[in-house]
Amino acid sequence: MQQEKFITTASLDAGEINLIHRYWCAANYLSVGQIYLLDNPLLREPLQAQHIKPRLLGHWGTTPGLNFIYAHLNRVIKARDLDVIYICGPGHGGPGMVANTYLEGIYSEIYPEIAETTDGMRKLFRQFSFPGGIPSHAAPETPGSIHEGGELGYALVHAYGAAFDNPDLIVACVVGDGEAETGPLAASWHSNKFINPARDGAVLPILHLNGYKIANPTLLSRIGDEDLKKLFEGYGYEPLFVEGHEPEVMHRLMAGAMDRAMERIRAIQDRAHGGASPAELPRWPMIVLRSPKGWTGPKEVDGKKVEGFWRAHQVPVSGCRENPDHLKILEDWMRSYDPEDLFTADGGLKPELKALAPEGDRRMGANPHANGGLLRKELKCPPLSDYAVDVPEPGKTVVQTTEILGRYLRDILTLNDAEKNFRIFGPDETESNRLGAVFEVTDRVWMEKIEPYDVHLSPDGRVMEVLSEHLCQGWLEGYLLTGRHGFFSCYEAFIHIIDSMFNQHAKWLKVTRELEWRKPISSLNYLLTSHVWRQDHNGFSHQDPGFVDLVANKKADIVRIYLPPDANTLLWVADHCLKTWDRINVIVAGKQPEPQWLAIEDAAKHCEAGIGIWDWAGNEEDTVSPDVVMACAGDVPTMETLAAVTILREAIPDLKIRVVNVVDLMTLQSKDQHPHGISDEDFDRLFTTERPVIFAYHGYPYLIHRLTYKRTNHQNIHVRGFVEEGTTTTPFDMTVLNQLDRYHLAIEAIERVPGLKEKAGHVVESLRGKLQEHFAYVREHGEDMPEIRDWAWRSGS
Amino acid sequence: MQQEKFITTASLDAGEINLIHRYWCAANYLSVGQIYLLDNPLLREPLQAQHIKPRLLGHWGTTPGLNFIYAHLNRVIKARDLDVIYICGPGHGGPGMVANTYLEGIYSEIYPEIAETTDGMRKLFRQFSFPGGIPSHAAPETPGSIHEGGELGYALVHAYGAAFDNPDLIVACVVGDGEAETGPLAASWHSNKFINPARDGAVLPILHLNGYKIANPTLLSRIGDEDLKKLFEGYGYEPLFVEGHEPEVMHRLMAGAMDRAMERIRAIQDRAHGGASPAELPRWPMIVLRSPKGWTGPKEVDGKKVEGFWRAHQVPVSGCRENPDHLKILEDWMRSYDPEDLFTADGGLKPELKALAPEGDRRMGANPHANGGLLRKELKCPPLSDYAVDVPEPGKTVVQTTEILGRYLRDILTLNDAEKNFRIFGPDETESNRLGAVFEVTDRVWMEKIEPYDVHLSPDGRVMEVLSEHLCQGWLEGYLLTGRHGFFSCYEAFIHIIDSMFNQHAKWLKVTRELEWRKPISSLNYLLTSHVWRQDHNGFSHQDPGFVDLVANKKADIVRIYLPPDANTLLWVADHCLKTWDRINVIVAGKQPEPQWLAIEDAAKHCEAGIGIWDWAGNEEDTVSPDVVMACAGDVPTMETLAAVTILREAIPDLKIRVVNVVDLMTLQSKDQHPHGISDEDFDRLFTTERPVIFAYHGYPYLIHRLTYKRTNHQNIHVRGFVEEGTTTTPFDMTVLNQLDRYHLAIEAIERVPGLKEKAGHVVESLRGKLQEHFAYVREHGEDMPEIRDWAWRSGS
Repeated sequence: MQQEKFITTASLDAGEINLIHRYWCAANYLSVGQIYLLDNPLLREPLQAQHIKPRLLGHWGTTPGLNFIYAHLNRVIKARDLDVIYICGPGHGGPGMVANTYLEGIYSEIYPEIAETTDGMRKLFRQFSFPGGIPSHAAPETPGSIHEGGELGYALVHAYGAAFDNPDLIVACVVGDGEAETGPLAASWHSNKFINPARDGAVLPILHLNGYKIANPTLLSRIGDEDLKKLFEGYGYEPLFVEGHEPEVMHRLMAGAMDRAMERIRAIQDRAHGGASPAELPRWPMIVLRSPKGWTGPKEVDGKKVEGFWRAHQVPVSGCRENPDHLKILEDWMRSYDPEDLFTADGGLKPELKALAPEGDRRMGANPHANGGLLRKELKCPPLSDYAVDVPEPGKTVVQTTEILGRYLRDILTLNDAEKNFRIFGPDETESNRLGAVFEVTDRVWMEKIEPYDVHLSPDGRVMEVLSEHLCQGWLEGYLLTGRHGFFSCYEAFIHIIDSMFNQHAKWLKVTRELEWRKPISSLNYLLTSHVWRQDHNGFSHQDPGFVDLVANKKADIVRIYLPPDANTLLWVADHCLKTWDRINVIVAGKQPEPQWLAIEDAAKHCEAGIGIWDWAGNEEDTVSPDVVMACAGDVPTMETLAAVTILREAIPDLKIRVVNVVDLMTLQSKDQHPHGISDEDFDRLFTTERPVIFAYHGYPYLIHRLTYKRTNHQNIHVRGFVEEGTTTTPFDMTVLNQLDRYHLAIEAIERVPGLKEKAGHVVESLRGKLQEHFAYVREHGEDMPEIRDWAWRSGS
Repeated sequence: MQQEKFITTASLDAGEINLIHRYWCAANYLSVGQIYLLDNPLLREPLQAQHIKPRLLGHWGTTPGLNFIYAHLNRVIKARDLDVIYICGPGHGGPGMVANTYLEGIYSEIYPEIAETTDGMRKLFRQFSFPGGIPSHAAPETPGSIHEGGELGYALVHAYGAAFDNPDLIVACVVGDGEAETGPLAASWHSNKFINPARDGAVLPILHLNGYKIANPTLLSRIGDEDLKKLFEGYGYEPLFVEGHEPEVMHRLMAGAMDRAMERIRAIQDRAHGGASPAELPRWPMIVLRSPKGWTGPKEVDGKKVEGFWRAHQVPVSGCRENPDHLKILEDWMRSYDPEDLFTADGGLKPELKALAPEGDRRMGANPHANGGLLRKELKCPPLSDYAVDVPEPGKTVVQTTEILGRYLRDILTLNDAEKNFRIFGPDETESNRLGAVFEVTDRVWMEKIEPYDVHLSPDGRVMEVLSEHLCQGWLEGYLLTGRHGFFSCYEAFIHIIDSMFNQHAKWLKVTRELEWRKPISSLNYLLTSHVWRQDHNGFSHQDPGFVDLVANKKADIVRIYLPPDANTLLWVADHCLKTWDRINVIVAGKQPEPQWLAIEDAAKHCEAGIGIWDWAGNEEDTVSPDVVMACAGDVPTMETLAAVTILREAIPDLKIRVVNVVDLMTLQSKDQHPHGISDEDFDRLFTTERPVIFAYHGYPYLIHRLTYKRTNHQNIHVRGFVEEGTTTTPFDMTVLNQLDRYHLAIEAIERVPGLKEKAGHVVESLRGKLQEHFAYVREHGEDMPEIRDWAWRSGS
């Protein structure tokens, strides 16, 4: 180890080092206590079996390192009056985060029963990983946390999301060397290329090399310092190394690295605020902390190496109730921190240590950025009428639906420009998804070199594009969790890339909604476009509408799924979603030119109900129930359904047809399953109790069955959707391959209406002929038949 | 640009350069032809509107670079008699892959109607992105491809998977600079730390910096060469730079880089085969190719920059049917390759160019590794009886189910050791998932430094562990696609991380099954363990059983889902899955100590049927249908169901109960939906047509409804499963939170059997009391009540 690579801080005297060390010991002591103790929190009596929890659940290995970092961040926050939040990538080191926020006092402010007393400490220990208590991770219950870290990989991307548009904030982000092996984390390092020091805050990544995962060394801990340095310089950072295990030396090194990092950040920001346009991307500092896993814990247990090895990962010494030797190891370990030296007789932290923590909102556990709802301002939205597509009669106007939405988003950007609290995210697809109007008022964020022929790139852009759905999702989550607003547009098929991130965010929201002190944050809004029915040029790999199936598994309070069939409904839905909180809204809408159905007033009425009969499309009579219900959800299914209705009305004028369109998929569920579910009476009114329902659905048909299986008429609901038949072909051929096209829908309607097939067999024959004709035509000409391309709705009457 | 950083090959004379250049022109010509032409393939007459396809669908931008690389790989393959496959990360450059395999002759061998004639070329052009033709990507239809690249991010990890245990193979892998921004790709570079040069092949990554994505510059193309070099050296590579646009210079540079790379690979392998244990990880070569996007295409269209810019991404000049200027640009562009100089009068490649391609299996389009089924050998599996758990009576034996499986996997490793065609993959969880027995005969692969206290690490290990589900999945896919076998064990919740990779692999399999020339490959087998019901110590973030919902959306031929309730059923299922092909098998099974139900013969019978009545558990009489069916799927639901049956039989002896256990979830579907679906008659026999069914299911309950909604008795099927209630608590409390526990199941049975509640109200009361008792006990003691912990099945009779 070359000493010259380390930096120390001369200004720190031995007394200050000793205080920091004791603070660290206090956090370590409280961490061990949480994992092990039911009682005897201050070890005022000898440790006995009955003081130990029956189930030892927690992770020690990463915790002392997390506590070490926390103590040193406290020092620089106080010394420099910094605004810092702490993102704990190794979130399973939850005991450390709880311990530190307890030491700061904020824990007891939020949870008064966990007071800064001996009894409070007993409860603090007991509740950890205990039924009715708190989870073992840096969960929503943990003050100061915006990141649970249960599923690894997203710490750094959350950190960057938090830093955007927060010029005074420094986001300290601990990345474990296990987590560093994940894909999303490996890509996240490049987020530094999206930080504009003139308007954003800073991220200070702290790569914590403690050498081991659950049962393996980590890759980065063993590549050698030379490659490590190159790797992070290659990523664009200035890595500052802190390595060792001897506490005093380590405190000096860490203090030095922290000072250097904070000075570098300040220098970069000062230069940018001074108006200097940097000739090159700033080289932000990061810290590489190499310290032993399970540092300060038992060196060996039963003759096996524990400290500095993977055996320290969870509970370093187990069976302490049954095994007196192990109980002794635990007691010696806890006493090695000298609790009498740390806590007063009544269980409070000694005043000289208490004085080390920052105060008020400067405490990382109390920083409002980590409870973003506190800072959230309502998004200003323009009136929808300004963007409404004129629809004098249904089906005659053809527009690119998402293009209209782009104009609306453009003006949201303008209206909220002063607040700097709205960004648009997408994997290189904003233009491709036809939201290009936003580039009339903003650009893509670009901090690297800009060529003269480049378009819509600027350091001040508010559109975040990178070819990584993980980064888009993670940045947006970090941005929302710190109280801002955003919008994520994505190719429908590839949103599956972030399935697991969606899961974790939904879980986070589910828990935060149960915590009164966590204030609501803006909803996470997805626009899924370039969807399954119009990926005819990219083919099968780009055709997957299954994300909503995953979404529908989540708690009903959290999720909404919208399938607006045209531009005005899309406008209403997007506007609605942007005004909601603590939810995940999924909007699926196409980007290709499509017929428009509803004028804006009708769109609003239809969307508010979420589901409804389109009187103008059907021909039922008031007095009796229709012969068949043609239901549809999604833009392409709606068009095919209306085309099928045209066919049926022209061919069989006395067939009484009802058209039902579904915008809000959750209306289909029972009211007891989802707050948007309509009542059984309303459902029966819409879908009848006995007539055949031909349901054309955007995605996998099973979801409709899953949502409606409790409804009276379920056995007559026949769903057509995507059945995993796709390739590079024409748009209409895609629907034919999956039997969602007008001809199949019309045939099915005829076949399902009792007695009709006998009368209208010739119509079925002629439609089958149409399918043959289509088949031959597209294979000959490479495009859809003119009557398909030029199709327009006619009522047929 | 510093010239000294480039390498050239002195041995290549101008004639050779010229031949390579013409070969490249031929590939480029054929690529453009595919995107644009319906007819007039050799431009024997002036290009006219009717020669142009009505819909122009394809991606030119990346294609010339892909063709350039292909031509130079051909040169070194021939010159050095190398065994090389080509992985095309920018798979949307499909025209290039098709063009090259057509030039090699293999395309016409596989698809004789696409002959090496003028008419064949016409068909080649026409079929591309055309209804009834071929997809626009490097899809399964493309010879030589094992990677479609539609969803970006997996090229390099597939390449490494292909190289493992293939010592003579070199996998050339083109990584686009767009793809390089994704998380999985950013992590994949570290795969070099898992290649053992003494037993594995080599991967030659070729990072293709063409500067732009769909509408943006790429991050890596603009960080500057110095950081780029550091980044890849930091990743452990020796980057070789090839930069420019002037063809002759570029050919020389590329030839030089290729020679250098092949020499370096050979040197590393020779040293390893010589038995030298490398003091450090070998520094494998890689190539950084910086060339213009849309190279050799139109420089400008309508006054806008195209070549070297993102406008070249898809179709550089559009509207050629309508716009004569554009038609002219296209014709000039195509003629710039001088087709007369490339092809004979009857449309074949000129002999002097034909001679440049390798021959037979050395052609990258014909390499059998890229059609892995050709090389696949059956896996040798030991007899299950050697591992069977002795189950003299149900429910008395308690074992860790996956631990038994570990022994079986251990012996598979031994039996197939000579073939070196089986590996186990897992994100640092093999030991945690209790498969540790495999470490009796093998280790984890580890090429970095090994410390004296490390355990089970070796360069020769057959267990692949890294903290990235993406890498595990991608390596395994690459390994299977090249004809080998594997097994992936993963925490259930985090398998969602690879949802989208699963999707893409399922799509690949769906298409390959329709191609006769693609031979079957081994199935992709997942063991999902550390599952939702036993992540009580990690809490909510680790609790998600929804992966199977995604799986169930895929084509029935492709997917299977198994929920073995104990060790012997798990053995049977795993053995079965390992012997299948062209499928994705998902096995969900717990790792904690659990009661065992079936002796091995009974397990085999039960699993073969996939579903069945457990006579020994119920008490129905032969002649009449039971009062209630207690159904279960999954280990914890099975245990809770049997515990509920115990309670019911003891409390209400005259209640006639049937127990149905489901191992193969697909049996629940109708036969027309899944080949494993049982007939309606069989379903009615098992579940009755009118009795209440209390169905305890492992995952989200909706899936059971979705699978059974067509069955006669569906309205009486009441499913309990995971309803998104989780935290850090006791195992039994987890089931109570989700109302899947024995008490809730028993209460529901009583409430659902008509008239029973009136008679057995006191039982319901007592069970509700039990729930209260449980609630109080766990919150007091932190563990489950002794009667829960010590519970064992009793028939109650």
